[in-house]
Formats: sequence, structure tokens, C-alpha cells
Amino acid sequence: MAPCLSIFFLFIITFCVTLTAAAAGHYSLQTFFPRPAYQSLIKHAKTPKPKLPFKTRYFPQTLDHFSFHPKSSKIFYQKYLINTQYWHKGAPIFVYTGNEGDIEWFAANTGFMLDIAPKFRALLLFIEHRFYGESMPFGKNSYQSAKTLGYLNSQQALADFAVLIRSLKQNLSSEASPVVVFGGSYGGMLAAWFRLKYPHIAIGALASSAPILQFDKIIPWSSFYDAVSLDFKDVSQNCYEVIKGSWAELVAISNQKQALAELSKAFRTCKSLHSTASVLEWLWTAFVYTAMVNYPTEANFLKPLPAYPVQQMCKIIDKSPSGATKLSRAFAAASLYYNYSQTENCFEVEHEVDPHGLHGWHWQTCTEMVMPMTCSNESMFPPSGFDYKKFAEQCRMKYGVLPRPHWITTEFGGERIENVLKRFGSNIIFSNGMQDPWSRGGVLRNISATIIALVTEKGAHHVDFRAATKDDPDWLIQQRRQEVENIQRWLDEYYVDLRDA
Amino acid sequence: MAPCLSIFFLFIITFCVTLTAAAAGHYSLQTFFPRPAYQSLIKHAKTPKPKLPFKTRYFPQTLDHFSFHPKSSKIFYQKYLINTQYWHKGAPIFVYTGNEGDIEWFAANTGFMLDIAPKFRALLLFIEHRFYGESMPFGKNSYQSAKTLGYLNSQQALADFAVLIRSLKQNLSSEASPVVVFGGSYGGMLAAWFRLKYPHIAIGALASSAPILQFDKIIPWSSFYDAVSLDFKDVSQNCYEVIKGSWAELVAISNQKQALAELSKAFRTCKSLHSTASVLEWLWTAFVYTAMVNYPTEANFLKPLPAYPVQQMCKIIDKSPSGATKLSRAFAAASLYYNYSQTENCFEVEHEVDPHGLHGWHWQTCTEMVMPMTCSNESMFPPSGFDYKKFAEQCRMKYGVLPRPHWITTEFGGERIENVLKRFGSNIIFSNGMQDPWSRGGVLRNISATIIALVTEKGAHHVDFRAATKDDPDWLIQQRRQEVENIQRWLDEYYVDLRDA
Repeated sequence: MAPCLSIFFLFIITFCVTLTAAAAGHYSLQTFFPRPAYQSLIKHAKTPKPKLPFKTRYFPQTLDHFSFHPKSSKIFYQKYLINTQYWHKGAPIFVYTGNEGDIEWFAANTGFMLDIAPKFRALLLFIEHRFYGESMPFGKNSYQSAKTLGYLNSQQALADFAVLIRSLKQNLSSEASPVVVFGGSYGGMLAAWFRLKYPHIAIGALASSAPILQFDKIIPWSSFYDAVSLDFKDVSQNCYEVIKGSWAELVAISNQKQALAELSKAFRTCKSLHSTASVLEWLWTAFVYTAMVNYPTEANFLKPLPAYPVQQMCKIIDKSPSGATKLSRAFAAASLYYNYSQTENCFEVEHEVDPHGLHGWHWQTCTEMVMPMTCSNESMFPPSGFDYKKFAEQCRMKYGVLPRPHWITTEFGGERIENVLKRFGSNIIFSNGMQDPWSRGGVLRNISATIIALVTEKGAHHVDFRAATKDDPDWLIQQRRQEVENIQRWLDEYYVDLRDA
Repeated sequence: MAPCLSIFFLFIITFCVTLTAAAAGHYSLQTFFPRPAYQSLIKHAKTPKPKLPFKTRYFPQTLDHFSFHPKSSKIFYQKYLINTQYWHKGAPIFVYTGNEGDIEWFAANTGFMLDIAPKFRALLLFIEHRFYGESMPFGKNSYQSAKTLGYLNSQQALADFAVLIRSLKQNLSSEASPVVVFGGSYGGMLAAWFRLKYPHIAIGALASSAPILQFDKIIPWSSFYDAVSLDFKDVSQNCYEVIKGSWAELVAISNQKQALAELSKAFRTCKSLHSTASVLEWLWTAFVYTAMVNYPTEANFLKPLPAYPVQQMCKIIDKSPSGATKLSRAFAAASLYYNYSQTENCFEVEHEVDPHGLHGWHWQTCTEMVMPMTCSNESMFPPSGFDYKKFAEQCRMKYGVLPRPHWITTEFGGERIENVLKRFGSNIIFSNGMQDPWSRGGVLRNISATIIALVTEKGAHHVDFRAATKDDPDWLIQQRRQEVENIQRWLDEYYVDLRDA
């Protein structure tokens, strides 16, 4: 089977679709790979960075925690944001375990921590993940090759957090302060894994939308795209069918002589298209990411979007003139994702910028974060499989390294991870919203009295981490309340233990 | 303060003693360092290797689990010993997490696992630690420099175990087999840490004589040598005082013109001595290692020795002719350690061989396994301190790297480790014998219902792991019985969980 388009957490997409005649009808679309331009387009968005109530600091971090070559002890400067305004010595420290992007971006979209800090008198710490944002171990050369990128992986990141937290507590003369880690998406995985691997440093973890089961063969590989499709189908069967049918129309146009010119016009591209595959990717991205951020209120995480944007997309599709093609309806729906703010006169279909500094994720998927995904016949995407050999060869070509597809489950647990958590773990909240396709790789049921799942039907990608708004629905208010109650219990138990010790 | 002689687990000793006038009387002995010859003396003992009921296998292991450089994925062949004679599919797998030496040596001295295998129908696996024995990632060049040695550390070793065990279970088509890890000394640390870091792979750990608290400032630095001294003092106050007084006599001779010739004769050295410090080290080694292996029965772990060898040493000292010097009595006592088998006509005081392939331990102490030790005024050794700066400088000179003295406690837990184990851990037995000076760095009290300490007053360095003999005292039989009962309980619970899943 041909590999499916793999959507990674955020903006980084690896493209490995082959629509064979067998898989996608009577047409064919050539295999396409990541646009080489993508990696070099490290422009940051022109929009000014939000003013956040944090001070920026840089910590001298060890390059390689797990080996002792002469080079391993090289120091790089790891960025972190700190807010001490509510804190006093001995009070809790809440740490966001940064994921694949600029740390400000996560801080700006994790208002929940700021909202609850006064209640807990908590110090807030947002630690940037190595090789993202400004935390570049080799400066501008950090992405040069596997020789430098080799140090970018989750275990090194967890060790960074451990070393930084320990040092900070020492510098604050507040070693007894309990630490709770928070993370969303890949950051949620890191938070949960941190609690598993460093229980002596964090007393608990709130892991939001953390698909720790998305590896190896723990869940069916089609889960992700089936979930995206279900989001649309649940709103409108017609909406789902239009999108499902649009790919055939795209392929039909792609086989015509003037395909690129025609598509450039139809998709209002700022520059003439070089590949019809870009259009597929552009549409695909819009549907997948809109499903992920199908939030109940207007928000701007990946892009500015209205409340329940999947409903809005389907409204556009369902209300299109009856003569409109499926592809033109799909385009109109996707335009909501790219231009809700009505600021775009044309679309950078082939040159979307990377405003959040996420470009390292592709490397991570080519080494340890191998999350196979396929598209089933029931999905609204062209059916396709996951060809590991082809995927591995692409990684080898691009970086000169081969993925280690079983490493994450070896290091952090695989099929039996829930049993292990039950017996061995404690104080972890796995929060998920079922609108988010990543929820299918999450922990969706309570594992024990202290490892709990908070699942909301209408929630999306770490919606609980967003700052409270006056429009928040009850289920979201309730979810956040439960999170606060659990954290409070962990802290109470910690202080009792400390007093009794 | 000057640094104290640091005895590491087994044969590898780093020498950093300075006997200043203030510390050791009116004499002085120059600082001495590891004999350069030591590292190159990688001869194996001439004694034939014991015939063990294991097959030898080699596993293609990844060089660097925690980075993804092009070189990281290099494969080396890791040796392991396997016995399947009692096993059937689904039955338990008992794994010895190899420590700093040839794996056969540990297999030969861990008869306990063979003794209990039939009862549990267990498969036995002894995995050699990377960079020891035959498991050399760079063949004969493995010890060439920090570039190669950089991959020698405990976390890489734990990951090796995880990868190998997972692969073996898959090859045996017995993924559901529960794994219990066993380890003694540094291997015991590895077993306990493995249970902490890889609970999804091992359901429990028996960590014998594992001084996981010997790091940073968790326990007083003088604990180790105080414990050695107490072993001798408990047998005879005179014995303790003779040894304590012998150092001054040694220093007095060292200040004489013909010191080397005189000492060569007095210590019956095979070759003329080059340094009087060698004599101190030779005596020191004998007393420390004899305390460690003060077993209740005749045994041959480090050297062939009689039952309760400390008692025998003190008998030699106490019964010496009344005119004998303290130094000559100390020599006679130490001779028991080096020549109990009466096969030596002279002593290789400066060229002791390394029969068990332990030469990598010095590197480990210079990187992560920093266990500060001092000699208090109450010890039978010359009082001395631990000068971290000097120690670090020696490591830099020798290997070009600096130690990371706080890394082990960051990675595996420090002062609060017992609290953490209580809340977070389960299914670990810490067994210790109080004759063993390493016991002072061990977990000596029950932490929870499932993390227990089995402590014996008369036990020594992982004596419980030795094969049962007809002469075993009741307390040892009882200790092993408790170990078996706990392991049985872990397995019973596992199989109940498995059935209910």
C-alpha cells in the first residue's frame, strides 16, 4: 500500500501520498514529498508577538546528557519564560514542558496556567524545547545536518527540563517547592513521560491532548483520519461527501494540459503553481487542522478561526450554489481556514510561512516520533496505507539517518502502557477533546484513582489550556475545574508528606 | 582536606590520598594516582573459566540510544548468556542486569538465580554491560579515548537491556512473559533504576547491595570507610588499632633511604617496588575488599577466602608474636586476602591483574558515578577528605572530560528518593548485609508494602546472590526465602492482571 499523508502535530506535514489507480479511482497523482522550500522558509509571522507577563531567561544547558564525549558537555542557552508575581518561597512551581515551537507561542496559548496561578500562588515556568525557537544548540547551523540535529529528541528534552528545574529550585533556595508539569500535544506527551521518568522532580502532570498511544501498533493506524472525517460527517453527511468527492475532481483536473494554470486561478494563488499536489496538501491541511482546533469559541491558535469552525466550513459547503463543483466547495471551505480574518487577497499555496518555528518536527518524525497513519475507505481522504520502507528511505535520503520506529514504545511503554500506569504511575491527568483527531491516540479512560482521563465530547486540541473566556461552555468550565481539583489534591498530599517527613 | 582513597565497587581503585602531616602524623606521603599500567593490564586470569549452564549469544545493539547522529546507529555485539532448560512459553524471564565486568563472572557468582529457576520455570538471561567483557563497541579501541568511551554510562546500559529484552521476547513469541531483573552492587543499582525507568518491561527488581544513596550528599561521605573499620573493630579492638597504627609505620619507613628495598622484602614482592604508595594501596585493598566479601562460608568472588575472612584476618593480627610491628601484622593479615589458597610465592603488589575485565569503572567514576568518600578520625584509615576540584582535574587530565557530580541524582533521584519510591514505585527488594560497607549507601528500611528492605546483620556484598551451600546460616536461608516469596507474589499478581485484562 502507498503511504498516507501524515499530518504531524502542527504545521509540519510530510507528504507521502500516492493515489494509485487502485486506491483512488481511475486517475493517478504523482507521489509528492516535502517541498524543499518548506524547511528554508523560516520567516516569522509579521504579526507582533503578544505581550506576555513573563520575563525571558536563558539557562546554560548541557548538549548531551546521555554521553560523555568531549563535545557532549558543550553548553547551549535554553530559553525559558518565568513569572514569579504570585509566588513565595515553598509555593508550587508550574512548568510547561515546551514542545515543537517558539515558547512564547505556547505561553500565549496556555492562558489556563496564568488563570490558575494566583489561586495556587504558583511560579510559572515555560521552558523552550531544544532546537526550537531561540534554543538552538548550534545557532544558525543547528539544522545543518544529522551531526547537529542528532541531539534533538524527546529524552534529551526531558533531561533538559530535569536539569533546569533542579537548578532553578536551588537558585531560588526553594528545593521543597512541589513541581507540577503541564503540556499540550507533543508537550503533553513530554509532561506525562516526565512524570513517569522523573517522579522525583514532578509530583504530577497535566497532559492535554497527548497521543502517547499513537505509536507502533497500539491503536489502528487509520484512527487519526477517521476521526477527522467523523468531525465533518457528524456536522453534515453532505459536507463529508463533498470533501470525499473533491479529490477525484482535483486529480481529473491535474491530468489536463492546463492544470497548473487552471488550479492557480481557481485557488487564487499569489504565485503560479508548480505542482498540483500543493493544492491537495493545502486543502488537506485546512480540513485536518480545522478539525484539531474545532474550538467552541473564536480563537487564534494555528490561524484565526470562528467558534466551531468545522460547522462553519460545512455551512459553506452545504450552502454553496447547487451547480458548484465539489472541488470549488472544498476550496471555499478551506478558505475559511486560511482567510477567516479576510486579510488575504490571494493564497500562498506553495509558500505558507512557518510562523511558530516548528521546522524541527520533521526531523523528529524521521528519527523517533514515528506515528504511522493510513486513510481507510471510510475516511473523507483518498484511501492509502503506510509504507514503512519508503518512509524510512525518504528519511535516509533527507537526513542520512533511519527512523527507530519501536524506540518510543521501548523507552516509554507500548501496548501495555495503561496497565503499567495503573500499577506504577500516579498523579497524571490525561485530558482530551473528542473533536481533536489526536484524541484517538490519547488515554481516554480512568486508569486508577490518581491517573485519570478527562474527556469531553465537544473539546478539541488542548482547548482546556486556553485562557478562560466569557463564552466558554459549561463542559469546558467543568473540565478545567476538575483539573484544578486534582492538582490541588496532589499539592495537599505533597505538603502533608513534607510536614510528616 | 585531601581526598580519600576511593574504593570503587570491585577491583578498580582511584588513588587520591594525600597523607599530610596534619592528617597522618609527622610524616608525609606523596599524592599518588592510578598506576598507568593498570589500564593496560587487561590480562585475564589464567584460571579456567567455570563451566556454566548457559549458551552464549550476541545481540546487535545500537551504540547510542539517545541521539541520532549518523554514528549513533552503529551496531555492536552485546554478549548475553541464556538458559532455557526450565522455561516454557509464557513463563517468567529472570534477567541479570550486568555490571562492570565479564558477564560470566557475575553468572558464576549469582548461583541464586540458577537455584530458583526450576521453581519458577524461569528463563535465565545474563546481559553483559556495554564496554565490559566482550561487549566492546569499538573492539580493541573501545578504551582509546573519550570519543569511544563517551558511550559508556548507566543510561545507555539500561536502554541496552530494554531493547535486548524486548527483542528477545518477540523472538521467543512470548511477549506476555513477565520479566524480573536481578542485579548486585552497581548491577543492583541498574536493576532498581531499570524498574523505576522501565516499569513496562520489568515487573520487579531484586537489587542486592545497591548503594543508590551513595551519591551527592545523601549520606555522610565517611560512611563507607567507617563501615569497613567497624567490621574490624567489631571483631577485635586490637585488630582495628593495629591496622589504624600500621599506616604511620609505613610512612616512617617510606621516609627512609632504603624504603623501596626494605618494603619489597617485607612485602615479598615479586618485583622491586617503584613506589611506597603501592604498598598502602595493596594493604588498603585487602582490608576493604575483605570487609565487602565477609561471607559466612568459604567463597571465591574476588579472591578465594575462608568463611568470615575479617575474623580470620583479625585472628592473624591478634595472634602475631608480641614483638611484631603493626605493619608486619597488617601485611600478614592482608596476605590472607591475596594468598588464602597458598599458591603465591611472592606478591604482584604493583601489577595485580584485572581478571574480571573491570577496567571501565574508572571512566564511569570520572563521568557520572561520582561517589564522594572521606575517612573520618574514627576510621582505621588515615583521615582525609574529598577534594572535588582535584578529583575533577584528574579526570580532565586523564580523559579530557569533567565529571557531572549531580547528574545521577537528577536522573534517578536524590535526597527524596525514598519518598518518591514510596509514592511512585513498587516491586523492588533492596537486600543488604551490614558487613558490606556499601550497605551504608543502600535502602535499609521498608519503604512501602511492595518496596522492601531485607537487611541482615551478618551479610556481606550480595551474599544472597551466591549459590546455596550446605553451610549457609539460617539468616541467609531466611533472606533468600523472603526474596523468593516476594518474587512469587509479583508474578502471581501479574498473571492475575493478565488473565483479567
